Amino acid sequence: MKQFCFSNDRIIDSKNASIHPMDIGLIRGYGIFDFFRTSGYTPLFLTDYLDRFIRSAEKTHLKLDFSKEELAQIIHDLIQKNDLEQGGIRMLLTGGVSDNHFSPTEGSLFIFCEDLDFPAPYKYENGVKLLAADHVRAIADVKTTNYAFPVWHSADWKKAGAEDVIYHHNGFISESSRSNIFVIKNDKIATPDQNILHGITRKRVLELNKKIEIRPISFDELIDADEVFMTATTKKILPVTMIDDLKIKDGKPGPKTIELMAAFSAMEKKNALV
Amino acid sequence: MKQFCFSNDRIIDSKNASIHPMDIGLIRGYGIFDFFRTSGYTPLFLTDYLDRFIRSAEKTHLKLDFSKEELAQIIHDLIQKNDLEQGGIRMLLTGGVSDNHFSPTEGSLFIFCEDLDFPAPYKYENGVKLLAADHVRAIADVKTTNYAFPVWHSADWKKAGAEDVIYHHNGFISESSRSNIFVIKNDKIATPDQNILHGITRKRVLELNKKIEIRPISFDELIDADEVFMTATTKKILPVTMIDDLKIKDGKPGPKTIELMAAFSAMEKKNALV
Repeated sequence: MKQFCFSNDRIIDSKNASIHPMDIGLIRGYGIFDFFRTSGYTPLFLTDYLDRFIRSAEKTHLKLDFSKEELAQIIHDLIQKNDLEQGGIRMLLTGGVSDNHFSPTEGSLFIFCEDLDFPAPYKYENGVKLLAADHVRAIADVKTTNYAFPVWHSADWKKAGAEDVIYHHNGFISESSRSNIFVIKNDKIATPDQNILHGITRKRVLELNKKIEIRPISFDELIDADEVFMTATTKKILPVTMIDDLKIKDGKPGPKTIELMAAFSAMEKKNALV
Repeated sequence: MKQFCFSNDRIIDSKNASIHPMDIGLIRGYGIFDFFRTSGYTPLFLTDYLDRFIRSAEKTHLKLDFSKEELAQIIHDLIQKNDLEQGGIRMLLTGGVSDNHFSPTEGSLFIFCEDLDFPAPYKYENGVKLLAADHVRAIADVKTTNYAFPVWHSADWKKAGAEDVIYHHNGFISESSRSNIFVIKNDKIATPDQNILHGITRKRVLELNKKIEIRPISFDELIDADEVFMTATTKKILPVTMIDDLKIKDGKPGPKTIELMAAFSAMEKKNALV
């Protein structure tokens, strides 16, 4: 956590940030957030993230007191004050302290700057393992703070040597806890569209390759794929080479994934220079 | 919210209670709680609630620094300081501020005293309406703070004149957002056991009538029931007379429900006098 954060209406010392524990953000887990990166002091794909944050607030009936332009200005000020050349920015909007301890009311807005570590290089080189779990995220198309299941389940990932989870239900896959999933078979790339958060990195990958199919993907297809990868702000494109104890093909990152990783890096560098 | 609360290790003014917004209780919705009532300055069924709170902490890998006996003493002190003859007591344990913003660490414990309003008398006389929703609560047997779905969905209840939601999935019902459900047909009472929180009021009702069947209940059975009621700490036994736009039988609270409501009141009075 970097020294300065935005709290409701002003920039303060992050250590002094506080919220009342009766906020339904805490007692009912009702809040939204978003998270993006800076590169060379530039927030990457900022418009996309701000659009999504504003949409999340609308969909959860939470009042946001700032316009997109005002939020962008606050973020630029914070980047300067925190000297955040490379790092992560977390925006959080809570449900507020409510008379009936349930219904949303006037909440609190926070923006924090953070150090950001990508997965270790060997994970990009070897790929990672995901643990399958039958789960559907509630209100999946909204970036809520509702991560109770994966935080609880993460004790199992660690035991299994897995990087994260992959959700499936009724035979179809959706997403990982904080990443989207892509599956490649016979040079055709596909990604699901149901019960997922529409990731900004996912959106960029779909721009990089217009032929990617957006359609339901069964768990059997996942297991039978030639290549699998996940996308996330904090991971970019990360190869997935194992699901539970099953290897994807020969258990190594495949050529299509490696090609997209390079293309994504190039796109990102271009964006950071704008 | 009453004047005094317990915060981590001491009794403080409730207005001054605070938590850092980077606690995963807030940014990941990872925390547990429990809620019970006082009657005549006596916490009702306290042992059951404390046992459940301690079990919730264990199941979510959250460290609780106080024993059951110590918690009971703190609660008794708070009741005296707040002069809480009748009211609600909320215990909350959060996941803590975590280096990776995800894994549980040392959290914060709060205990608040609150005013408590039961549903209006006409709701007990006429019964209430529930709105059906396809949903399964994650880690349902643990009292987590994970209420993102029902808080979001509650905007629909209000529009529909419903009191709350009833969850169903794959044709079977589980629970309401903060209540258990009982179904009566041909004088036989049944309640589900899967994907539910095991309510303390539910437990008391099962003690009042040892013949209640604990088994899966289909949505069709619910709709076709003679009587339906819900149980909760904040509702006791509340008749349910409508699901969406379908009346349960003649749309009035039935004799078996009314009988149990009286028996529960008698049991509670006895407990408060102990």
